[in-house]
Amino acid sequence: MTDIIEGEVKNKPRTKLNFKQGKIEMTHGAGGRAMHQLIEQLFLAAFDNPWLQQKNDQACFNVDSGRMVMTTDSHVISPIFFPGGDIGMLAVNGTINDIAMAGAIPLYLTAGFILEEGLPLADLQQIVFSMAAAAKQANTAIIAGDTKVVEKGKGDGIFITTTGIGKVPNDILVNMQSPQPGDKIILSGDIGDHGIAIMSKRENLAFETQIISDTVSLHELVATMLKIDPTIRCMRDPTRGGLATTLNEWINQYGISIEIDEHAIPVKESVKAACELLGIDPLYVANEGKLVAVCKSDAATEILAAMHAHPLGKKAAIIGEVSHNQHGFVQMKTIFGGKRIVDWLVGDQLPRIC
Amino acid sequence: MTDIIEGEVKNKPRTKLNFKQGKIEMTHGAGGRAMHQLIEQLFLAAFDNPWLQQKNDQACFNVDSGRMVMTTDSHVISPIFFPGGDIGMLAVNGTINDIAMAGAIPLYLTAGFILEEGLPLADLQQIVFSMAAAAKQANTAIIAGDTKVVEKGKGDGIFITTTGIGKVPNDILVNMQSPQPGDKIILSGDIGDHGIAIMSKRENLAFETQIISDTVSLHELVATMLKIDPTIRCMRDPTRGGLATTLNEWINQYGISIEIDEHAIPVKESVKAACELLGIDPLYVANEGKLVAVCKSDAATEILAAMHAHPLGKKAAIIGEVSHNQHGFVQMKTIFGGKRIVDWLVGDQLPRIC
Repeated sequence: MTDIIEGEVKNKPRTKLNFKQGKIEMTHGAGGRAMHQLIEQLFLAAFDNPWLQQKNDQACFNVDSGRMVMTTDSHVISPIFFPGGDIGMLAVNGTINDIAMAGAIPLYLTAGFILEEGLPLADLQQIVFSMAAAAKQANTAIIAGDTKVVEKGKGDGIFITTTGIGKVPNDILVNMQSPQPGDKIILSGDIGDHGIAIMSKRENLAFETQIISDTVSLHELVATMLKIDPTIRCMRDPTRGGLATTLNEWINQYGISIEIDEHAIPVKESVKAACELLGIDPLYVANEGKLVAVCKSDAATEILAAMHAHPLGKKAAIIGEVSHNQHGFVQMKTIFGGKRIVDWLVGDQLPRIC
Repeated sequence: MTDIIEGEVKNKPRTKLNFKQGKIEMTHGAGGRAMHQLIEQLFLAAFDNPWLQQKNDQACFNVDSGRMVMTTDSHVISPIFFPGGDIGMLAVNGTINDIAMAGAIPLYLTAGFILEEGLPLADLQQIVFSMAAAAKQANTAIIAGDTKVVEKGKGDGIFITTTGIGKVPNDILVNMQSPQPGDKIILSGDIGDHGIAIMSKRENLAFETQIISDTVSLHELVATMLKIDPTIRCMRDPTRGGLATTLNEWINQYGISIEIDEHAIPVKESVKAACELLGIDPLYVANEGKLVAVCKSDAATEILAAMHAHPLGKKAAIIGEVSHNQHGFVQMKTIFGGKRIVDWLVGDQLPRIC
């Protein structure tokens, strides 16, 4: 073997990916040079951080002792681009929110990509840029990732699984005490925006006002609330299955009953109209930028005031309370003055909403 | 509303999932009662641990201060059942191994499931049981998860994304020092088993000896090695792209050159024969239960002896060394006495191998 041959191989020009017209091919997931080009030219460039630069199969970092949280979500939303966001932004915000709902500070994220052969590289690039921006906005980083490619017809463009870890500050006691009768239920804003935005796009429905997904990360709103009361009983973001499902999950989890007041639940007029047209109950429609919290009665007013002062909590409202009823239900006082049980649905009315 | 009505709703019998004949439906991913049944009757039951029992959207745990690692992998292997394992076992072992390769002790895992409508519940159950067993074997737990369902024809049975975190003991210095010329390259055993097992199953090839995937978690073998030398330079499990790709990754990462000796690389006769038949080079075939390590020359013999005493390292061998060559290659002394460059492939010869 001569130096000339070695030199030729070493200096072999690296192909630049064509982000305008290129498409994902099977080789992009196959562990060889094509995959490494995708990683270097797209993921490393966009997520740019020292942990990915370690280029190991795992990222290493330091932590202080104490409580941590870990959460994961797979995202299969269709369509992958929708009014107000895309699957990448949604994946990052969703994971940040699951971390924040425990009162934790988001630390690090990972992302696993399952790409369908034929996905335009331009789409992937846009999604990856969205993820990078969303991670930056939440002061976190995507420190490890993985890319797999499946044959055309064995996937649906792109699926993204994000996992995150966060640190719970020592004084935060969210999820440490069960909700008690008399505790107030606070909702951070309008419900139903995300689900209806997706549904409208999917069904090509045009409404007078465009309905936009509320996808956003809520960690700062949560920090604002916890500054007022670090002992908020519990918080959750009512995504798949909507507000009704979240409340029913708490009932199962804590053995409580909840009474809510339909009149107090904020829903945009445009969303209300779309729900009526589609025959859908907004209580069960997915949100991606709202939270519902249970807090002690005497702290509720002050927490609410703090939320109102935050851009993401302007329409926050006390929508009900944990009741003394022993039956383990969500009961709702309807706008007509009656009462009805808000039960589980078998499934969301809208598939692949996140 | 009367108590009788409330009572009826409360005592509504929970349907038992039919794990013999049932199939995944869209509602199993839709956030309502059907999804919660799947979670309670399958995931919570199989993965049974206090973190999942928290039933929050995130799991909470305590850590000591120090170095941690985090890693993620999406798994799209086809077929999902193969000689020696299934996609669930593979997903857990793969993540454990990526943690172990940093010298870390595996702590916790998460799992994101993307299921295709129509997947037999019996298949899902078998896979989930495999995951539970693999996690238990590695003394770790799957503490958070997520399930999504896509329409028939938009997925391929099941995709699983596993993420894991681990703790690096203070005295472990893996990945902290770059490999140096003269360092030895140790391989833990036969290469090519996993890729050839999958290929045989996929193509319905029958060989005299059945070739079985080597999927296994390597954390104990790693612990054995680190007991001898906590300053092993680096370790990696040569999965997608095989041994050749791992060595080339190190060359890129550390700016080194590597010389290996083909004669020293263990390959089973049956795998060698299958590779010849299929026109595949075993150097590029995926492994799921092997590791390759770079260690200081003076520690190599003792590390090797310790590996030989462990069931997963019986065939471990020193296959080469970091060379003084400045050209940044993997060079291999062939069994015929010549030398050739072992370069990157564009992609693995075998798609969807993990």
